Amino acid sequence: MADQHAQSGEDKRPTEIPVIRWEEPPEGPVLVLLDQTRLPAEEVELVCTDAPVLVEAIRSLAVRGAPLLGIAGAYGVALAAARGFDVDDAADALAGARPTAVNLAVGVRRAQAAYRAELARSGDMGKAAEAALAAARKLHRDDAEASARMAERGLALLDELLPGGGHRILTHCNTGSLVSGGEGTAFAVALAAHRVGRLRRLWVDETRPLLQGARLTAYEAARSGMAYTLLTDSAAGSLFAAGEVDAVLIGADRIAADGSVANKVGSYPLAVLARYHHVPFIVVAPVTTVDPDTPDGASIEVEQRAGFEVTEVTAPQVPVTGPGGGIPVAPLGTQAYNPAFDVTPPELVTAIVTEEGVVSPVTAEALAEMCARSREVTIG
Amino acid sequence: MADQHAQSGEDKRPTEIPVIRWEEPPEGPVLVLLDQTRLPAEEVELVCTDAPVLVEAIRSLAVRGAPLLGIAGAYGVALAAARGFDVDDAADALAGARPTAVNLAVGVRRAQAAYRAELARSGDMGKAAEAALAAARKLHRDDAEASARMAERGLALLDELLPGGGHRILTHCNTGSLVSGGEGTAFAVALAAHRVGRLRRLWVDETRPLLQGARLTAYEAARSGMAYTLLTDSAAGSLFAAGEVDAVLIGADRIAADGSVANKVGSYPLAVLARYHHVPFIVVAPVTTVDPDTPDGASIEVEQRAGFEVTEVTAPQVPVTGPGGGIPVAPLGTQAYNPAFDVTPPELVTAIVTEEGVVSPVTAEALAEMCARSREVTIG
Repeated sequence: MADQHAQSGEDKRPTEIPVIRWEEPPEGPVLVLLDQTRLPAEEVELVCTDAPVLVEAIRSLAVRGAPLLGIAGAYGVALAAARGFDVDDAADALAGARPTAVNLAVGVRRAQAAYRAELARSGDMGKAAEAALAAARKLHRDDAEASARMAERGLALLDELLPGGGHRILTHCNTGSLVSGGEGTAFAVALAAHRVGRLRRLWVDETRPLLQGARLTAYEAARSGMAYTLLTDSAAGSLFAAGEVDAVLIGADRIAADGSVANKVGSYPLAVLARYHHVPFIVVAPVTTVDPDTPDGASIEVEQRAGFEVTEVTAPQVPVTGPGGGIPVAPLGTQAYNPAFDVTPPELVTAIVTEEGVVSPVTAEALAEMCARSREVTIG
Repeated sequence: MADQHAQSGEDKRPTEIPVIRWEEPPEGPVLVLLDQTRLPAEEVELVCTDAPVLVEAIRSLAVRGAPLLGIAGAYGVALAAARGFDVDDAADALAGARPTAVNLAVGVRRAQAAYRAELARSGDMGKAAEAALAAARKLHRDDAEASARMAERGLALLDELLPGGGHRILTHCNTGSLVSGGEGTAFAVALAAHRVGRLRRLWVDETRPLLQGARLTAYEAARSGMAYTLLTDSAAGSLFAAGEVDAVLIGADRIAADGSVANKVGSYPLAVLARYHHVPFIVVAPVTTVDPDTPDGASIEVEQRAGFEVTEVTAPQVPVTGPGGGIPVAPLGTQAYNPAFDVTPPELVTAIVTEEGVVSPVTAEALAEMCARSREVTIG
């Protein structure tokens, strides 16, 4: 792999490394990522000099999370353009790196469209590369703004659903500033509640198999000074039964036109538990997550990941012994079922919060109306 | 710790080490356990020379599983008696080693009662120690027989609920010969279905945080030649949604008089999912698991275990770095909520299968009637 790792700082204190940034050193432009596979033990940067390195970073989850993938994909196209690689090849490879994440393809296609439009207009590849970069930067900025608006709308919804404050919020996977140009999606709502003193506790699902909750959400919660508690995914049942969960807040990787929500595996069981216990189940995602070309939940392609994520234990410090680079915990030869996502049907979703508005109850019509409004705003 | 570890065999093939056995070498009697914390990587024996070593083995889960804990507890009393330690002190320490497991206390008290009765009768401590050992051996034998009868009854129930065979069974934690004097509880039913060609697939929940499913159930399934697939606990939701689960079979650590079932954390979410998807949720446990002194689910004391089971990754081969002996995956200082068990209310349990019969629907009356029948059999 052509990337380089640069250890940040010597004292191991939390630093403020941006999750993603574009740099233009004399050797040529690069995309610098915070390598999320090494958190929370180490804050390490991963420098992408071309699109294939970025594709690998996306596949290995060094960069991840729906909104951030869109931004990364757009910068990836800009990188290919700036370095003189084939832009269409790079765009196809990037868009296909993770099939379920719709934002990735949206980001890639947006930068690619800006590139093509400028090329068609001026015939100047340098100017076209600049246009792709400008599109990526705009997406980055827009996403930060969208985060702030989702947080505001989500907090207002929480206050409406749960008057009195003292919210105990359960979340799954990681949806904070590590996945976003801003403060994230579901996590941004919890953070907004924390800032106004209305968050009593953030319950953090560890999120097997890759432990994004334990590694990343706990890291973000700790840095934000929130009261948080980590739990295994299936201990959430005990919290619901004890009446310790006031609302579930999760992100989304793709929302179908009917309101079905694809998100990290383990979201659907929480939705069923939330329904059984009459607890609001709230999805927070930018409007680009809604894919009008996916009619329903059954049409969502769910990525199946390698079995060794389940059959082996990995951590940055673990010596490599198994075929997947970790230590086998199951007998050798054990097959694993390892879907990356699951799909929650709209009838289990209390509300979908986007930067453009809140859809509740979740219906195809309400969702389409909000998306149409969003397009008007974008076009206008 | 006064125990010794003896590596078995040199070729690392699966061997037939008994899970528990009593031995009388010239140095004095010992209780030899298969150390379940080392499976499946290594088959290592743990030799207990007195009750405190056994208490530690129970706490560390080297020996575990409701029925086996009863047998181990009874042998532990016999060991204290045979070695001339204070039997009542040993019995109290053993019975309290894991508070939720009712069978442990039942086994301990049975051997203690046999000891006391013989001591009262003959005044001979040697004879009393023999009586305690005889009680432990009887419990061991009875449990093997109970396993066979649970398997038979459970298979008949499956065939009744799911005519046509080809069962796809989801199980949680570990309930096979590693927890029993025989072939176990829920796993014994799946094994019986496998033997008559009616098991299509055993879905094995990995069972966080200690991975008893990945480490132990997968090991037992592999050795039995079953078609099995491992999954993270929360991926079970996707299987239910896809219609890939025909029945859930689990064991129990304690069943209250009202039919509430305490079992490994993660059982309750499966019960809620099973109900939502109209899939039978079947509990298989020896009748000693029913505790008439615990009136309902709310009265069941649920053991809270150390947070580092969640915040650290451990495997026998992992170098020790964190306070819990593993590698930290969450930020240092992260608190974890780590209940060992959860409680499933009777209304979510389709049937309770014991060696004495099947209770379905699960009501306090039906359960009490079955227990009364069982006591008649025991007394008769």
